[in-house]
Amino acid sequence: MVQTEKNAVFMGSSNDYDKSKCVIVGAPMDFTASFRPGSRNGPQVIRMVSTGLEEYSVYQDKDLMDHNYYDLGDIILPFGNVTESLNRIEATGHKLLEHGKLPIFLGGEHLISLPIVKAMASKYPDLVVFHFDAHADLRRDYIGEKQSHATVMRYVSELLGDKKVYQFGIRSGTKEEFEYAKEHTNMYVDQIIEPLTQLVASWDSRPVYVSIDIDVVDPAYAPGTGTPEPGGCSSKDIIKALLMLSRLPIVGIDIVEVLPMIDQSQRTALLAAKLVREAVLAFK
Amino acid sequence: MVQTEKNAVFMGSSNDYDKSKCVIVGAPMDFTASFRPGSRNGPQVIRMVSTGLEEYSVYQDKDLMDHNYYDLGDIILPFGNVTESLNRIEATGHKLLEHGKLPIFLGGEHLISLPIVKAMASKYPDLVVFHFDAHADLRRDYIGEKQSHATVMRYVSELLGDKKVYQFGIRSGTKEEFEYAKEHTNMYVDQIIEPLTQLVASWDSRPVYVSIDIDVVDPAYAPGTGTPEPGGCSSKDIIKALLMLSRLPIVGIDIVEVLPMIDQSQRTALLAAKLVREAVLAFK
Amino acid sequence: MVQTEKNAVFMGSSNDYDKSKCVIVGAPMDFTASFRPGSRNGPQVIRMVSTGLEEYSVYQDKDLMDHNYYDLGDIILPFGNVTESLNRIEATGHKLLEHGKLPIFLGGEHLISLPIVKAMASKYPDLVVFHFDAHADLRRDYIGEKQSHATVMRYVSELLGDKKVYQFGIRSGTKEEFEYAKEHTNMYVDQIIEPLTQLVASWDSRPVYVSIDIDVVDPAYAPGTGTPEPGGCSSKDIIKALLMLSRLPIVGIDIVEVLPMIDQSQRTALLAAKLVREAVLAFK
Amino acid sequence: MVQTEKNAVFMGSSNDYDKSKCVIVGAPMDFTASFRPGSRNGPQVIRMVSTGLEEYSVYQDKDLMDHNYYDLGDIILPFGNVTESLNRIEATGHKLLEHGKLPIFLGGEHLISLPIVKAMASKYPDLVVFHFDAHADLRRDYIGEKQSHATVMRYVSELLGDKKVYQFGIRSGTKEEFEYAKEHTNMYVDQIIEPLTQLVASWDSRPVYVSIDIDVVDPAYAPGTGTPEPGGCSSKDIIKALLMLSRLPIVGIDIVEVLPMIDQSQRTALLAAKLVREAVLAFK
Amino acid sequence: MVQTEKNAVFMGSSNDYDKSKCVIVGAPMDFTASFRPGSRNGPQVIRMVSTGLEEYSVYQDKDLMDHNYYDLGDIILPFGNVTESLNRIEATGHKLLEHGKLPIFLGGEHLISLPIVKAMASKYPDLVVFHFDAHADLRRDYIGEKQSHATVMRYVSELLGDKKVYQFGIRSGTKEEFEYAKEHTNMYVDQIIEPLTQLVASWDSRPVYVSIDIDVVDPAYAPGTGTPEPGGCSSKDIIKALLMLSRLPIVGIDIVEVLPMIDQSQRTALLAAKLVREAVLAFK
Amino acid sequence: MVQTEKNAVFMGSSNDYDKSKCVIVGAPMDFTASFRPGSRNGPQVIRMVSTGLEEYSVYQDKDLMDHNYYDLGDIILPFGNVTESLNRIEATGHKLLEHGKLPIFLGGEHLISLPIVKAMASKYPDLVVFHFDAHADLRRDYIGEKQSHATVMRYVSELLGDKKVYQFGIRSGTKEEFEYAKEHTNMYVDQIIEPLTQLVASWDSRPVYVSIDIDVVDPAYAPGTGTPEPGGCSSKDIIKALLMLSRLPIVGIDIVEVLPMIDQSQRTALLAAKLVREAVLAFK
Repeated sequence: MVQTEKNAVFMGSSNDYDKSKCVIVGAPMDFTASFRPGSRNGPQVIRMVSTGLEEYSVYQDKDLMDHNYYDLGDIILPFGNVTESLNRIEATGHKLLEHGKLPIFLGGEHLISLPIVKAMASKYPDLVVFHFDAHADLRRDYIGEKQSHATVMRYVSELLGDKKVYQFGIRSGTKEEFEYAKEHTNMYVDQIIEPLTQLVASWDSRPVYVSIDIDVVDPAYAPGTGTPEPGGCSSKDIIKALLMLSRLPIVGIDIVEVLPMIDQSQRTALLAAKLVREAVLAFK
Repeated sequence: MVQTEKNAVFMGSSNDYDKSKCVIVGAPMDFTASFRPGSRNGPQVIRMVSTGLEEYSVYQDKDLMDHNYYDLGDIILPFGNVTESLNRIEATGHKLLEHGKLPIFLGGEHLISLPIVKAMASKYPDLVVFHFDAHADLRRDYIGEKQSHATVMRYVSELLGDKKVYQFGIRSGTKEEFEYAKEHTNMYVDQIIEPLTQLVASWDSRPVYVSIDIDVVDPAYAPGTGTPEPGGCSSKDIIKALLMLSRLPIVGIDIVEVLPMIDQSQRTALLAAKLVREAVLAFK
Repeated sequence: MVQTEKNAVFMGSSNDYDKSKCVIVGAPMDFTASFRPGSRNGPQVIRMVSTGLEEYSVYQDKDLMDHNYYDLGDIILPFGNVTESLNRIEATGHKLLEHGKLPIFLGGEHLISLPIVKAMASKYPDLVVFHFDAHADLRRDYIGEKQSHATVMRYVSELLGDKKVYQFGIRSGTKEEFEYAKEHTNMYVDQIIEPLTQLVASWDSRPVYVSIDIDVVDPAYAPGTGTPEPGGCSSKDIIKALLMLSRLPIVGIDIVEVLPMIDQSQRTALLAAKLVREAVLAFK
Repeated sequence: MVQTEKNAVFMGSSNDYDKSKCVIVGAPMDFTASFRPGSRNGPQVIRMVSTGLEEYSVYQDKDLMDHNYYDLGDIILPFGNVTESLNRIEATGHKLLEHGKLPIFLGGEHLISLPIVKAMASKYPDLVVFHFDAHADLRRDYIGEKQSHATVMRYVSELLGDKKVYQFGIRSGTKEEFEYAKEHTNMYVDQIIEPLTQLVASWDSRPVYVSIDIDVVDPAYAPGTGTPEPGGCSSKDIIKALLMLSRLPIVGIDIVEVLPMIDQSQRTALLAAKLVREAVLAFK
Repeated sequence: MVQTEKNAVFMGSSNDYDKSKCVIVGAPMDFTASFRPGSRNGPQVIRMVSTGLEEYSVYQDKDLMDHNYYDLGDIILPFGNVTESLNRIEATGHKLLEHGKLPIFLGGEHLISLPIVKAMASKYPDLVVFHFDAHADLRRDYIGEKQSHATVMRYVSELLGDKKVYQFGIRSGTKEEFEYAKEHTNMYVDQIIEPLTQLVASWDSRPVYVSIDIDVVDPAYAPGTGTPEPGGCSSKDIIKALLMLSRLPIVGIDIVEVLPMIDQSQRTALLAAKLVREAVLAFK
Repeated sequence: MVQTEKNAVFMGSSNDYDKSKCVIVGAPMDFTASFRPGSRNGPQVIRMVSTGLEEYSVYQDKDLMDHNYYDLGDIILPFGNVTESLNRIEATGHKLLEHGKLPIFLGGEHLISLPIVKAMASKYPDLVVFHFDAHADLRRDYIGEKQSHATVMRYVSELLGDKKVYQFGIRSGTKEEFEYAKEHTNMYVDQIIEPLTQLVASWDSRPVYVSIDIDVVDPAYAPGTGTPEPGGCSSKDIIKALLMLSRLPIVGIDIVEVLPMIDQSQRTALLAAKLVREAVLAFK
């Protein structure tokens, strides 16, 4: 297994890796952040504030105490080395899948989704990705760099093939990104619940990986993020969306771009922790 | 009268206790807070920011200037002594009721509702409680303590009898609390306006005490609170709910768990102050 | 032209004043603020955070890069001298209109709208004003002062004549202000999208000036403002409202009362910047 | 007496105006602030945090409880009207002196010192001023305005005559201000304790008015101020300076430029409150 | 052993309790706080920020890596139950001493020192206490309560006997407290390094317990504390003081009143963590 | 010239590059930050707050208005690409030296000093570096990465040769770093003014490059930095140190690790801006 460091753990997580289906792992990388870095502290703070929540979910009438899930800690990443960091994240993904786990990655910046999807796709050839975000993340490069939080879904889409990425809540991007989306992805501009309802109702058996950039939620609800974009959904909406996903064959999930440093109330990390709780209960 | 200290007062409050029906009183206790203490400063800051609002309510077309209401200040409580603090709060409740007042208590933590309800119930034997909260507050004990913000509605319910507590907006609790609720209270999970509409439409004459934990509102609107729980209602919703209550025979109200220290914008205290204004105008 | 100072500029703004129809100009005045001053820093911070947004708007499928618009910088105002400041703002308005521009003023406090409307009305005799605000701003005087952020729409209304001011989202004011509104303005209490839909559908050709006090939005979405009033609309709503305005003959706009100092997330300034982007794209 | 408003009062202040020598009064004006306004909230917050201190001073072995001093509240000032505001402050000064009081003014911006000194000088013709500040405040005008926080000591000096103003701790200003100082004031650049020691040791009987701009202290100790200037003295130093002043014939004092909004710890207001306590104990 | 909970641990702490002489333990109690509660989060945040420091101390030329020391986690305390909490803290103290450990307690409020000293005194009959604080903490009661952060050193002194408590840096208290100190303790008003130098130079063999209230340091250096008192020492001073203590027979230490919630920079917790590091290196 | 972007500029900077000796340039890189990233915003905020200072320095009796100095803006860096970023910074250094300029670099993280020194050393073969910092920055690698803010002075030292780096104020590092320092650099542990006084008094003609990590100053004075280390010098000390440097043949300077996001008062950026002002006045 890739080397991790582990201090605080997610509330109620088990000591038994083998018996756990869901495995939480932090990818504390934010080197390509463009507006405000600091999401590297996301995983640690999400774990810490998780103790402010209950282990029981009234939404699902399920209790974390009835399940085993493991918190692997944070992958140790070399500060500033993007390529090596992505390699270690991908390696972690491969290892978890090899062990039959359902990974729950905590970002960190959105670029971490790329190596995870690479690992996922090698196991699930017909993988599709459900992408919740304020931003399209479909640039070809960003100030000359191909490896960027702003390009991640472009390369995910190229990896999986056309129309394999479903994008929800998108409200920001360049003209080129939206043109790319028309041809290559399924994008629902500024919409979440409605298209999701239709998709869930008629989904086939293809495995789904979920990537939630917390900035899909309006900065009123999630101010602690690197590139806040006013005009998003509410915390109720994203919780509802996650619960709807429970009816799909989910094989992994990431929750990224939580930047605790600029949210004194920590409601962004709390929302992320709540999504993790619901994911553990829904996907196992 | 129990000893109080009085510095800043609520905007437009009268100097004439005798002529006032509504009496505002602070209960600055937060000793059993579990996640983040500091709600003891709630009453003082709610008063201070109240001057940023108008005395006229366009919602009700009524003006505070046309009414007498009194601000008693804060009850002096011995820091750290829970039992004595609850005694003083209860004594204050008895005194106000004896004088024919409609008390408006400002917390402080939610546990203050228990002694108030005790006083209320001794005057109004058929009292019911309308409880707005993110949390069920129905535990039997919390880390061994029966007197806790997390147990308050359990003991209120036991005091008043089964199905006398109506709970709105609840979205967090243990499995046991929700099971208790099924048998002993009327709980509307994650709902406020809809059930309230039905209740108000067909209410009998039983007197109603209202307890509003500000965390029923989403932390986007009320970040200044001790145990924020993403996924709540908006400030519009809670204002609307309070206005609907004006059609019931309200005999008292508390607004609790405002924690000013972690809300630089003070919009949590402002929302509480606005609820106080509407309560004074609605309930007298 | 009135003297301005110019440091950071709005994203993508042109260097060619002559070719630009829309001109952004800051009016960094907050001397009559009553609760919390500091909106003088609004224009500068709105410009700075604008770089966190994209130049393309998916809402309108238009790109700032396809248009010329100019950022004039901030008008240099003598700190504390209200009369002279208003004179300079009015002079700027006259000059811009003389040059055939569509002005986009950034406040600063709301009082800046008065001299702008004066300039506007001298060019457009049948001008009407669309006013988005939490507060009526219809007082005759405020603590003895006629020139105040709390009186601005009263004097705008007296200047333009009865029923020329349309007020949206209003939820705070004195009894007298609401009585004044009944006779002299068109006020939609606590409503925005509905009345706007009707007005837009049947509008005649009269020119419209738009004045947006950011506090029309709930403090959850716009905490950085001087007199926050809980119970407002969402950021989605105000964006939607602005997009609807694109179907009217808009001749100018101001966005006021952004107070960056108390909003660490800067989502208030980001929302204002987004409104500026949409305004540039919609009104030219 | 000029009209005041009074809500929270300074700790331990008396209800008996007549028996009080020291009178605390707030002048909540900040209209000419240039960098960051908000000092208008200084007086109110200084009073509020004063309860976090003790009434006994171990430095002087004296107790506030052994003395009468009165808190008059804040002078009601018309927002944005500089001239009228200065008139009311001056009128308050005259009234207090007529009643034989030693005034303790709380700012608000530094310009408030000018009308106070005018009142002082009319009673004490040989008045001198001890001025503690990071800034010289000796400009002739500021962006065309003579009435400004940046000009106040120039006009105080012109009013009292050459070499009647003693300036301590100054470390910022224009070249012209420092040249003016050489001829017209006694300025101790970047020094406080040393020159004060010498002056106190050999002082004649001339009455002294003290004006403390809190930014004389380094922003590490007093971050809550409008124009912070790194490189200042410590809180220990300014307390020591105030204690040394007790050996002079002090006839009044002001403490200005406390801006609470940007100091979450409120240590700036606490320092000001401590200086008020020491002043009451030292000067009566 | 008393029950503890353990999540994040202090940097470099050992897994081997038996081989460790120094044992770090958190006492997250703040129920008797009077001004601002929240120090219960102190221990957890001190541990978390400790990773921002190095394990080597250039002051002592020693490295944590060369020593075993254990982090026991936080004692589980019943929120709001003062008496039971003090019992558990005392029990922990007894247990650690029984095992031959040198305890390093992290507060929490200052009252925790009383049960620790009780345990200490039962093992070391000639124990003396070195107390660093802004406040005398020598009241007989505080608003009627004997068990209070404001009374703790009074009862420590009564427990140990006259002149067994040495108090450094004190600059706040009631007249009565300072009078008590004259007879019953050794108090160095507003002084630290000088008296400490003399004491250390001629100390006999009596065992010393050290209690550091972080507010002995000026709020510029330690803003995150419940009752900040301007006029304190620098961080350099307190580090120097701790290093001087290494020449005494220290048998235990506590560092209390760190309140992380109001210190965004976390420099208060960082200073406490640095003191813990130096203590581990100096006292073992 | 390397491509830069330029929005706000440093106060009073000239439009004439050719006539300017000092050239300010931002290097907004923070990709290898380990504890808290965000210093990339340092240059922009230092420029913005510079307007809160005066252009005249009373310390030197010199005025920025009497000199030409140019602000080149920020070097455009590819987010997350360390090697390319360092290349662009070095190229900028070479270009500025080729044009005969004295560069004033604003960080950004400390690693930027390495490429600058490379450029410097190619022009000045006998270059020495004066390094002010809390941390030794002498590691060989950091979590496997050689290019790191924690290794920068090691590679500077290897580049220039033994004993060419003078280190002031150092108080943190690993044992290995301090051992390296003994052999290869001139380190003054926890000292600044004293050793500097001696060096300046007897300096030969060797050219000196100055590198100031703002964390050499105590976090009380400079809380806005990535790895704050309690126990540092005051803002007065670092200003004094910079003034002393004016007597040496300075050929360039950088001021790094200003992290504005976590310093609401912006006193860290203000201190940096003041150092830039003094540097411009001292070194040209």
